[in-house]
Amino acid sequence: MSPTITAFKSSPDRGRGLARDMRVRWALEEVGQPYDVRLVTFPQMKEPAHLALHPFGQLPTYEDGDLVLFESGSIVLHIAERRPGLLPGDANARARAIAWMFAALNTVEPPILDRQTAMFLERDKPWSEERLRLVDDRIRVRLGELSHRLGDAEWLDGAFSAGDLMMVHAIRRLGGSGLLEDYPNLCAYIARGEARPAYQRAFAAQLAVFTAASSGEPRSQQMQAERERPH
Amino acid sequence: MSPTITAFKSSPDRGRGLARDMRVRWALEEVGQPYDVRLVTFPQMKEPAHLALHPFGQLPTYEDGDLVLFESGSIVLHIAERRPGLLPGDANARARAIAWMFAALNTVEPPILDRQTAMFLERDKPWSEERLRLVDDRIRVRLGELSHRLGDAEWLDGAFSAGDLMMVHAIRRLGGSGLLEDYPNLCAYIARGEARPAYQRAFAAQLAVFTAASSGEPRSQQMQAERERPH
Repeated sequence: MSPTITAFKSSPDRGRGLARDMRVRWALEEVGQPYDVRLVTFPQMKEPAHLALHPFGQLPTYEDGDLVLFESGSIVLHIAERRPGLLPGDANARARAIAWMFAALNTVEPPILDRQTAMFLERDKPWSEERLRLVDDRIRVRLGELSHRLGDAEWLDGAFSAGDLMMVHAIRRLGGSGLLEDYPNLCAYIARGEARPAYQRAFAAQLAVFTAASSGEPRSQQMQAERERPH
Repeated sequence: MSPTITAFKSSPDRGRGLARDMRVRWALEEVGQPYDVRLVTFPQMKEPAHLALHPFGQLPTYEDGDLVLFESGSIVLHIAERRPGLLPGDANARARAIAWMFAALNTVEPPILDRQTAMFLERDKPWSEERLRLVDDRIRVRLGELSHRLGDAEWLDGAFSAGDLMMVHAIRRLGGSGLLEDYPNLCAYIARGEARPAYQRAFAAQLAVFTAASSGEPRSQQMQAERERPH
């Protein structure tokens, strides 16, 4: 039996691979684990059946036999622990790869998500532009530190790991913001991640879901959604 | 050799146990692992020697022989994997406990830390009060979901785990905000965590550091600091 993950029936990022199921798909592809996908809508995510799987009514979830998991970080770690390909064999190197997973989620991603809040949830506020600049300054601090640590290396700590997977996915959300361009080594790092065959397969799979969901949607409605939804 | 962690020489929370070294101290106490502490100042955290340990110039770090780790989540997980007391033996229960660690850090804590930003980093902005109300609404959503899942249980998933440790520490920061009082089961949950002997020992240890650092500080200066520093 393959594990089953959940993903948006119609992702608010319009297939750009920014939703968190992308991390889990990518991890599953890296280790060669087939999987099934159950698509859910926003209203379904807040219904009791989904809340039983995910206490906070979010995505993704992971079901494998009796096991139910939520939080992309814990799911990717679980996948990485079961099959080779995402964590080094050496115990110390393994612990450091996991440290980079936590760093991606807890130190680098929060100001990036705060940018989404400033741009979408609070965009009707008179202070939204001023606050966006404050948030961007905080993002630049983190990108500068990350760029400094990465230096000329290919990945953050030796071979590609689950830490790189989470970090690449966290910072690629900044594509189009103009914030990444000051850090050419981070741009190249993201490009290396996106060039991996496992990434490509995962990206194509999530895009196919979005394309199928929107195939019946009138073009004007798509453009309206493009303007209104957070990316 | 005991591992060495870093902690604030003079914590901005003035010994209230909110800094992230508290999580690591608590975990070490739960598993009965002796440890050493190296105290650092804010300027030292941004110097090359500390940045070599922590790429983002933060606390805590963890050094044990050749291994250097950063991020409280990864350090607590590492401690939990090496000695019994913080993760269940059953593989599925273990994965779920780790999911709660990630949930504490990535879903519950971000709006709580955003509250700190609104109250301290942005408190000079004319919109700081209005924005604080938006942030508080987001916190209430998460507390409501957490309260609903916890229900009448003692801990989030069976026996006390590293997931509870991280969650209790994340939400106890809201003490004094008035936000927790609507969720009596969460107040009781925090109280159960704080009543654990391991928590008590960890709390006393971090308080002793702050008390020693501030013993030469004039009272007026202490009160000034109390007003100015984020908690």
